[in-house]
Amino acid sequence: MMNSEEKSLPEKLSDDIVNYILKEKLQPGDRLPNESVLAEKLGAGRSSIREAMKLLASRNIVTIRQGSGTYISSSPGVVDDPLGFTFIGDKQKLACDLLEIRFLLEPSIAARAASYSGKDEIKHIQKLCDEVEQLLEEGKDHTEKDIEFHTAISMSSKNMVVPRLIPIINSSIPLFIDLTKSVLRQETIDTHREITEAIAAHDSTRAYDAMYLHLVYNRRLINFLKK
Amino acid sequence: MMNSEEKSLPEKLSDDIVNYILKEKLQPGDRLPNESVLAEKLGAGRSSIREAMKLLASRNIVTIRQGSGTYISSSPGVVDDPLGFTFIGDKQKLACDLLEIRFLLEPSIAARAASYSGKDEIKHIQKLCDEVEQLLEEGKDHTEKDIEFHTAISMSSKNMVVPRLIPIINSSIPLFIDLTKSVLRQETIDTHREITEAIAAHDSTRAYDAMYLHLVYNRRLINFLKK
Repeated sequence: MMNSEEKSLPEKLSDDIVNYILKEKLQPGDRLPNESVLAEKLGAGRSSIREAMKLLASRNIVTIRQGSGTYISSSPGVVDDPLGFTFIGDKQKLACDLLEIRFLLEPSIAARAASYSGKDEIKHIQKLCDEVEQLLEEGKDHTEKDIEFHTAISMSSKNMVVPRLIPIINSSIPLFIDLTKSVLRQETIDTHREITEAIAAHDSTRAYDAMYLHLVYNRRLINFLKK
Repeated sequence: MMNSEEKSLPEKLSDDIVNYILKEKLQPGDRLPNESVLAEKLGAGRSSIREAMKLLASRNIVTIRQGSGTYISSSPGVVDDPLGFTFIGDKQKLACDLLEIRFLLEPSIAARAASYSGKDEIKHIQKLCDEVEQLLEEGKDHTEKDIEFHTAISMSSKNMVVPRLIPIINSSIPLFIDLTKSVLRQETIDTHREITEAIAAHDSTRAYDAMYLHLVYNRRLINFLKK
């Protein structure tokens, strides 16, 4: 990034605001003090505060709601595409490499979810499993619900890094669905259901295997389509 | 993030500049056209272009060098702390959870590096291994070189996601070094050396095991210190 000598006033001020957020332990959804209060606290002009807030909004640390105020974002500091996949040209290799990372992470995460998920989390995973299944059977787009399903599993793993990591890795899901289309309809229904049942039964080995199998179906099809 | 209706002119323009970068296939280090050229290409005022560039700089897509020009960043779109770890309060749990993710990723990545690394990559890993060892023996801070060592291994895995992921996971290394201090000096020297030898010999199983052992030493010490 830039050296501190090269930082503009709004950049320095945005660092001050981050320190203020940390010091006050503000949480996602919390409202920040208004511009004039912050300007006084930080000894800066209101227009500089406004510039600094725009920089923080572009890094998804705060969300500016017109006419309402400025709030801490739900996943502060995590931007839409944090690993810069937009700037990778070879999307086919990207999809394969992302799938490889999913192989390393997701079976173990499903196993952890089986060990640590609570009643409400299991209900939520079951509901999403049902919803994906219904969309698949109706031939509708299930991309978003599919990501929600995998994210719910990752949330139940109780590892605080995982919910920040998995949605990024799963940015590959639209790529896969695009490549694999409806070919894997029945396999997706069956493996999703088995993952869900294993988590509900707190059977971590079965959850690991079911997730692994789910990924194997995807890899086999992708390798087949590459030929 | 924000809906497009809520986007300000500089935000919309920064999207246009991203599209321009993608269309022109500009690569890290490439220089962007100057403000007046871009202003004409995108049909915008120069001051709006300047504002848009500041937003792109805050997302590390471009780097503005005063008096020289604006360049594509070395890892475009990857900010300093892309998963927002700054905003996680419980640093002890964060360190443990990051270590768990390293267990899932790094042994397999070391195995891949053993399979796919070229001569120059092996030389580079060996050099970094020597440098970390020397710093450890002199009792000096080896944090930065340690991260470089693990990053060089991840680069050799030939998975294009890994070099974007591992430096983030390895943001845990300063935390570990801080927790484990010089206690693991000899274990670090020995396991680093074995990882390096295994990669140089293209022995992927030994590289996997050596990396696993390296992480085990760290986990055992962290668990011991927690008590």
